Amino acid sequence: MGGVPGGFLESMRELLGPAGVIEDTGEIEGYTTSFWRDRSGRAPLVLRPAATAEVQAIVRAAIRHKVPLVPQGGNTGLVGGGIPDGSGRMVVVSTARMDRIRGIDPHGDHLVAEAGCVLAEVQAMAAASKRLFPLSLGAEGSCRIGGNISTNAGGVNVLRWGMMRDLVLGLEVVLGDGTLWSGLRALRKDNRGYDLKQLFIGAEGTLGIITAATLKLVRPPTQRVTAWLGLYSIEAAVELYRHARDRLGDLATSFEAIAGEGVHIAQDQLDGVAAPLAGRHGWYVLVELGWGLKTGLEAVVLDWLQEAMDLGMVEDGTIAQSEAQRQAMWRIREGQSEAAAKLGAVWRSDVAVPVERIGELVDRAELALRPIVPDAVMFPFGHLGDGNLHVNLLLPGAARWDPELAQACQTALFDVVDRMGGSFSAEHGIGRSKRLELLARKDPAEIGLMRKLKAALDPHGILNPGAVI
Amino acid sequence: MGGVPGGFLESMRELLGPAGVIEDTGEIEGYTTSFWRDRSGRAPLVLRPAATAEVQAIVRAAIRHKVPLVPQGGNTGLVGGGIPDGSGRMVVVSTARMDRIRGIDPHGDHLVAEAGCVLAEVQAMAAASKRLFPLSLGAEGSCRIGGNISTNAGGVNVLRWGMMRDLVLGLEVVLGDGTLWSGLRALRKDNRGYDLKQLFIGAEGTLGIITAATLKLVRPPTQRVTAWLGLYSIEAAVELYRHARDRLGDLATSFEAIAGEGVHIAQDQLDGVAAPLAGRHGWYVLVELGWGLKTGLEAVVLDWLQEAMDLGMVEDGTIAQSEAQRQAMWRIREGQSEAAAKLGAVWRSDVAVPVERIGELVDRAELALRPIVPDAVMFPFGHLGDGNLHVNLLLPGAARWDPELAQACQTALFDVVDRMGGSFSAEHGIGRSKRLELLARKDPAEIGLMRKLKAALDPHGILNPGAVI
Repeated sequence: MGGVPGGFLESMRELLGPAGVIEDTGEIEGYTTSFWRDRSGRAPLVLRPAATAEVQAIVRAAIRHKVPLVPQGGNTGLVGGGIPDGSGRMVVVSTARMDRIRGIDPHGDHLVAEAGCVLAEVQAMAAASKRLFPLSLGAEGSCRIGGNISTNAGGVNVLRWGMMRDLVLGLEVVLGDGTLWSGLRALRKDNRGYDLKQLFIGAEGTLGIITAATLKLVRPPTQRVTAWLGLYSIEAAVELYRHARDRLGDLATSFEAIAGEGVHIAQDQLDGVAAPLAGRHGWYVLVELGWGLKTGLEAVVLDWLQEAMDLGMVEDGTIAQSEAQRQAMWRIREGQSEAAAKLGAVWRSDVAVPVERIGELVDRAELALRPIVPDAVMFPFGHLGDGNLHVNLLLPGAARWDPELAQACQTALFDVVDRMGGSFSAEHGIGRSKRLELLARKDPAEIGLMRKLKAALDPHGILNPGAVI
Repeated sequence: MGGVPGGFLESMRELLGPAGVIEDTGEIEGYTTSFWRDRSGRAPLVLRPAATAEVQAIVRAAIRHKVPLVPQGGNTGLVGGGIPDGSGRMVVVSTARMDRIRGIDPHGDHLVAEAGCVLAEVQAMAAASKRLFPLSLGAEGSCRIGGNISTNAGGVNVLRWGMMRDLVLGLEVVLGDGTLWSGLRALRKDNRGYDLKQLFIGAEGTLGIITAATLKLVRPPTQRVTAWLGLYSIEAAVELYRHARDRLGDLATSFEAIAGEGVHIAQDQLDGVAAPLAGRHGWYVLVELGWGLKTGLEAVVLDWLQEAMDLGMVEDGTIAQSEAQRQAMWRIREGQSEAAAKLGAVWRSDVAVPVERIGELVDRAELALRPIVPDAVMFPFGHLGDGNLHVNLLLPGAARWDPELAQACQTALFDVVDRMGGSFSAEHGIGRSKRLELLARKDPAEIGLMRKLKAALDPHGILNPGAVI
C-alpha cells in the first residue's frame, strides 16, 4: 500500500518546514513521472532539503524509520534511476533547492556547485569568468549537477574534455550511515589513499547522496569551426575520424555521426530548419573543432577537408559562417528524436563499441533488428569519436511501442553489442529500466563486486534500492 | 620470527616450479629492499607467477594458509608500498614474469599489457605503431605497468594526458576472495553500473592484484617544441603558466618549474651537462608543447615567448634546436636529486596545492622548514601545471638524515600543505611510509570509508596488509 511511518513524516515536517515537504498527490506526480513521460512510479512524499545538513538529517531519519530514499536532480534521466518504483514506499529527495554556486576560482580553473545547480547555470557562471564548463548535452537547461555526476553524464564534448567523471575534482557526499564526507578538493593530483569520489560518480544515488562538487573548468577555445559534411556511409565517417586525428591531432571537440534517415526526418519535420547541404547523403558528420590561438583555425580545417574530399571520404560539406548557421546544424543533430516522434513512436538506445567497430555495429544492428521490426526506420546517430551510438527506431504511424516488441529489439541489439565487447549503456546508466539486463549480462564476478560495494556503503539499504544493482 | 606455513610453500613449489619460487635469502633481498635502498623489509619467499591463473592460485592458497601477500612491480616506489614489512611473514608476489603485451590496436588507440610489462617497453610498443603511451616518469626504464596503475602514477605529461587513472580503459584483477575479474574493455564510454576499475587504480595492491590492463594510446604530437626559460621567481612561473594557457590553450604537454638552487647544483655536478642559459636565474621553467599539425608550432611558441618577455615574466630563454639539446634540458630536470646526493643527504617530498597557490606554498614551506634545518638547501621542483611540487632538502656534507629531523621536516611541511587544502602525497602514494600520516591527517569519515572498502574487498586481510590503510 505504501506510505511512510508517521514518525518519519513528522520529523521531516519539523526539519524542513512547508517549503521542504511535498505531500500533495498532484504535486508529487511531477517528481514520480519522468521528464519524457515514459516512466512513472509512486511516492508518498517528496522532500526538498535546502542544505547539506538537512540531507544528512533526512538520511539519519530514513535509517531510523527504514524509509527508502530516491535522490533526484532535474529528473531528465532516461533509465528511471531518479524516480521511485511502484511500491509507494520510496520517498523522493529532490536537490532542486540546493542550487547555489558556492564559489568560483577562474585562475584555479574550478568552481564549487551544489548538487541542485542546473547544468546551464553552471555553464553560464563559468562563461561569465571566461571559462568553459565543458559538459554539454540536450537536457542542459533542466538537468542538475548532482544527477550529471550520479549518472556520469556524457554529451557532445566528451571527445575533448571527457565525461563528467573527468570533470569532478572533489565531492561532498552524505553517506549511507548518515555521516558527511567533505571531499571538496581542488587538486589536480592527490594520491592520499583510495580515490573515494570515484565511487559516487555514476553510482546513481545508490552509494551516497551527492550534495556538492568541485568542478574542473577549462579555457574556452578562442577559435571554433563547425562543419556539416555529407558522406556515403558510416565506414566513410569512421575513416574520416581517423583521418582527422592523423591530420589535426585532438583539435576536434565533437565528432558526431548521423544517419541520413534521421537528418532528413529532422530537416523535413522541424520548423525553421534549413538543410545545410543541397543534396542528400547516406550519412552526415557534424564536426566541431577548437583551439586556443587567435587566428588560423579555419584555414587548417579547410586544408583537412579539401584533402578528405580529394580522397573521396567526404561527398559535400559546408562550414558554419555564423552562430545561427552553427545552431541550425546542432538543431538537426539534437532534434532527431523530437522530429521522428511527429511521424510515429520512437524507441531509443544508447550503446558503445570500440570506435573502429562503429560501422560493423550499424550493419549488425540492422541485420538483427530488421526481422523483428521490418517496417521500422532505423536512424542511428551519436558520438562517433567516443564509439557511442544511439541506435534509434521509428515505427511510422504508431502511437506507442508494444512493450514486447521493444523488449525483443532491446534483447537483439544488446546481444549484438555484447558479442562485440561493447556496452549496452554508454552514457545513460542503468537505473531501474536496465537493471535486469545488467544482472543477466554482466560477469558474475563483477556483479559480486558491485553487491559488496552496495552492502558496505549502504548497510541499511535505504539509498535508491532497486536501482542499478 | 616469520616464515610461511609448510603447506603453502609446498603448494607454491608445485604450482610455479623453480622459476616461480625464490627461497634463497640473498636473492630475496633484491625484492625486500627498495630501488633507492632507503627502505627494507623481510620476506620468507618471493613468488614469480607467469600467468593470471597462477596469481589466482596464489591468492587462493594464501587465503587457505593465511599468508599475507605484497604485490610488487618494478620496485621503484618511493613509499614502501611494494616491499614487505619487517615481520618476515609477508610473501612478495612479483609480476616481473608477466610481461607480455597481449595485443595492440593502433586504429582503436589501445593496447593490452600484462602487469609486469616495463613502462618503457609499453611506450616503445606504442611508438612502433605510431602511437604514444603518454605516461612518462624518471623510473620508466624499470617501473612496471601494474605498479604504475596501483600507484596511479603521474610524471611529466600529466598536464596534457592525465595520470595513469586517465589512461586505463580496462583491468583484469584477481580479487581478495580469489575470483578473477576480467574487465579488459576497450570502450571510451561505459555506464553499465559502478566503474569498478577505479577501485584498483591507486589502491597499491590492497584491494586486488592487477594482472593486466587495457591502456589508452594517443596520437603523438607531430611537432614538438621544448623551451628552457629563466625567471625571477616562482610567482613569475605561475603567471607565465597562466599566460601560456590564455595564449595557447592546452598546447603545453609539460610545464615544469625548478628552483635555481636545484638547476645550478645539477649543472655543476652532473657530467656532460651544459647550462642552457648563460646567466643564473631564481627559477627556471622547462616547457614542452606539442600539436598534431605539421608546421608552424615554433612560430606560435616564439610569439608567445616574445610577449612573455616583453611583459617581464621571462628574463631569458632558449628553444632546443636538437633532440640532444632537448635531452640535456630534461637531464637537468630529472637529475637534480642525483646531483644533490653528491653534495650531501637529500630529503624528498611530493606535495600538491591548487595550482595558483604554488608560490605561496614555496614561501610557506621555506618559513616552516628554515628554523628546523637552517643549513639545508631547499630545491623545490615539479609539475607546476599540476600544482605538484617536490619540495626537497639537501643537507650539505651529511651522510644521511637523522630520522627525527626528517620527521620534523615532514610534519612541518605536511602541516603547511594541510592548511592550504593540499595533498601530502600528490603522485607517490601512501604505501607503508605515509600510512600513519594518512590516519592522523584525513577526515575520519574518509578513513571510515576506506576501511569499509578494505574490509569488503579483502575480507581475509591478505592483500598488502599495513599498506595505505
